[in-house]
Amino acid sequence: MPSAHSGCVVATYLFEERPDQLQKRAESIAVGLTVGSWTDLPQAKQERVRQHCGVVERVEVVADAGDGLVKALVSVGYPVINFTPTMAALLTTVFGKLSMDGKIRLVELSLPEDWVRQFPGPKFGVEGIRSRTGVQGRPLLMSIFKSCIGNNLDELVAHFTEQALGGVDFIKDDEIFFTEAYATPEQRVEAYVKAAERASRETGRQVQYAVNLTGPTFALRDRARRLASLGAGALLLNVVAYGYGVLQELAADPDIGVPIMAHPAVSGALYASAEYGISSHLVLGQLMRLAGADIVIYPSPYGSVTLERREGLKLVEELRRPNGLKPCLPAPSAGIYPGLVPRLVRDFGIDLMVNAGGGIHGHPGGATAGGRAFVQAIDAVIRGVPLGEAAKDAPELAAALEKWGGGAD
Amino acid sequence: MPSAHSGCVVATYLFEERPDQLQKRAESIAVGLTVGSWTDLPQAKQERVRQHCGVVERVEVVADAGDGLVKALVSVGYPVINFTPTMAALLTTVFGKLSMDGKIRLVELSLPEDWVRQFPGPKFGVEGIRSRTGVQGRPLLMSIFKSCIGNNLDELVAHFTEQALGGVDFIKDDEIFFTEAYATPEQRVEAYVKAAERASRETGRQVQYAVNLTGPTFALRDRARRLASLGAGALLLNVVAYGYGVLQELAADPDIGVPIMAHPAVSGALYASAEYGISSHLVLGQLMRLAGADIVIYPSPYGSVTLERREGLKLVEELRRPNGLKPCLPAPSAGIYPGLVPRLVRDFGIDLMVNAGGGIHGHPGGATAGGRAFVQAIDAVIRGVPLGEAAKDAPELAAALEKWGGGAD
Repeated sequence: MPSAHSGCVVATYLFEERPDQLQKRAESIAVGLTVGSWTDLPQAKQERVRQHCGVVERVEVVADAGDGLVKALVSVGYPVINFTPTMAALLTTVFGKLSMDGKIRLVELSLPEDWVRQFPGPKFGVEGIRSRTGVQGRPLLMSIFKSCIGNNLDELVAHFTEQALGGVDFIKDDEIFFTEAYATPEQRVEAYVKAAERASRETGRQVQYAVNLTGPTFALRDRARRLASLGAGALLLNVVAYGYGVLQELAADPDIGVPIMAHPAVSGALYASAEYGISSHLVLGQLMRLAGADIVIYPSPYGSVTLERREGLKLVEELRRPNGLKPCLPAPSAGIYPGLVPRLVRDFGIDLMVNAGGGIHGHPGGATAGGRAFVQAIDAVIRGVPLGEAAKDAPELAAALEKWGGGAD
Repeated sequence: MPSAHSGCVVATYLFEERPDQLQKRAESIAVGLTVGSWTDLPQAKQERVRQHCGVVERVEVVADAGDGLVKALVSVGYPVINFTPTMAALLTTVFGKLSMDGKIRLVELSLPEDWVRQFPGPKFGVEGIRSRTGVQGRPLLMSIFKSCIGNNLDELVAHFTEQALGGVDFIKDDEIFFTEAYATPEQRVEAYVKAAERASRETGRQVQYAVNLTGPTFALRDRARRLASLGAGALLLNVVAYGYGVLQELAADPDIGVPIMAHPAVSGALYASAEYGISSHLVLGQLMRLAGADIVIYPSPYGSVTLERREGLKLVEELRRPNGLKPCLPAPSAGIYPGLVPRLVRDFGIDLMVNAGGGIHGHPGGATAGGRAFVQAIDAVIRGVPLGEAAKDAPELAAALEKWGGGAD
């Protein structure tokens, strides 16, 4: 077996194996998923092939798994010269055939920085989004359409306006909004841009529309350019459904001049089991950033669609830690109401997009009041004022605290 | 709740729930993943929105799950007018947000035939592949490169030739072969086409090269056209890593005049758990065919990379059953040696691609002899001669049976 060399993607797997077979299996992964065979190569060829051969970097038993098996963490280094800087090459190499190899999970990826720099990463990142929107020193606020499918353009515009008047920074489509029966995405962008201008005269705030980028895969680039030039504020992309490589291509395109917002649809199919698939901090964290998402929506630890708190924190860490790429803006989602804002900021800081659907539309005063309650909550947190205190002069926030609670801390 | 209407994709989920919550949860899926809300809509709007609203088609308790929970199968119909005929729209609708909703698995999909017909499906299918290759009345035979990475073009050509001389019908790249350090895919196609011609003069058989289609996502179409026009016999695609939509686009392109071979890399991340993700007969069966794979490689029930026999049979059923699209050629893979050919044909019929790596390269006489042993085994099975009998005049087959067994049946 060759020993470690520079420039490896190191993948760590959690799997069950017989203890006496662990090292052998680790080596067969390292060789089998790179040069195919090693011991039967002639010496001269081994010399040349060495730089391409995978290396076992760690074999660590972490628990007994019963039935004579142990749970082990095994790290294998794959030389980056073996693959091109594309998401498909990375995924196929580190978890292609292996994904079918019984009870096995990809739990960590360590990527060499100079290899990472060959990826576009986020085009805007946190600073770029702040500078585009003018929102500084506080979390951004996004409202989700209560319903999209089945509404005609007039109804959609009315619904958009109702949300915009609450003072939110972004309004996003449902990720399931594909039909163009009543209006195309292009028509929506044009109509909402006008509605946003009208609302802005009342609120004094600018609202951006995150439009769902839909259609055949190879038509997405042209559509993205078109929607951006029409005034879309962000492009919502179902990254796992389309493929990470699609995000990578869109992020790398200099003519798509708006942030890309990654939706987590279908991602649970990859991460939800604890023993199979790929860890959520990779699926929604590291890989989303590598491929170039500016904003990453992910299941908050508070709502009904849950992700363990520890996993959520790790995911956000991946979106932010220094790696040569711009940091992404995390958008924890599901079950967010105004009373949670202090906790959100405590958990994730202010470089955050507060993303609410039911927590806005379910407000007793309607969606406009719902947006205002969040604006008031964010303002209070930034000023260091307890929500209960701030609510005294903020009737919408008071109604939200009354309905959903929170703000006691 | 609206009642059933025509034109629904019906998705069936397996999940755990409290029995008294089952119906409610089913309804919240049907409404939540289509029109968003129902009961609070005005009557007039309900009328219009009805056609877009999801419907619960079945709620069936299948087992007790302990802790006051039951395992249930729940079928929900999603009106096809809600989404465009793209793989991303389908996946996002039926298992987008839901994939993150705890212990839940997508286990069946029923698609209306007139909706399915909006997809390209396989461009060639079984008959198209047979007519292109001239192979009739027997399974096709494919050999997998023993190693690709780290070999220069001369070595690769020698390795290709060694396999071609065994009389195989296809020779395929490793799915992990992305590097162009020693030769581009275009250079490989050109070199192998010449090597195939030379080999053909000896064997009297034509061999096709299945080249790994690699590179940035949006460049794949041009590359596919180029590789096809240079003489590639098939395009190998890591479908899950690139996204099903990429396959759909390539299959729909009239200028890509060769079959597409779907590799199952990364698919285990979706199907391997029994309680999360998506069933393998969808991931590698129904969805591959819908998106347009001509040949589908999947884990055989015999080898080390296993798929339950029942699942494998269901998968193949999906590749074949009448649905308006051409049938795909199944290529069960992993752990295939000549002695297994009778069982392969018994399990899956002759419309099959016998796909072997170790079972060819590990032959005591080398890869050429390994290919011959398979050719002899296939020939014997078609003639109805037991392998042990056929081996008397077929030394390569005899050596294979000696090494790996089989053929007793």
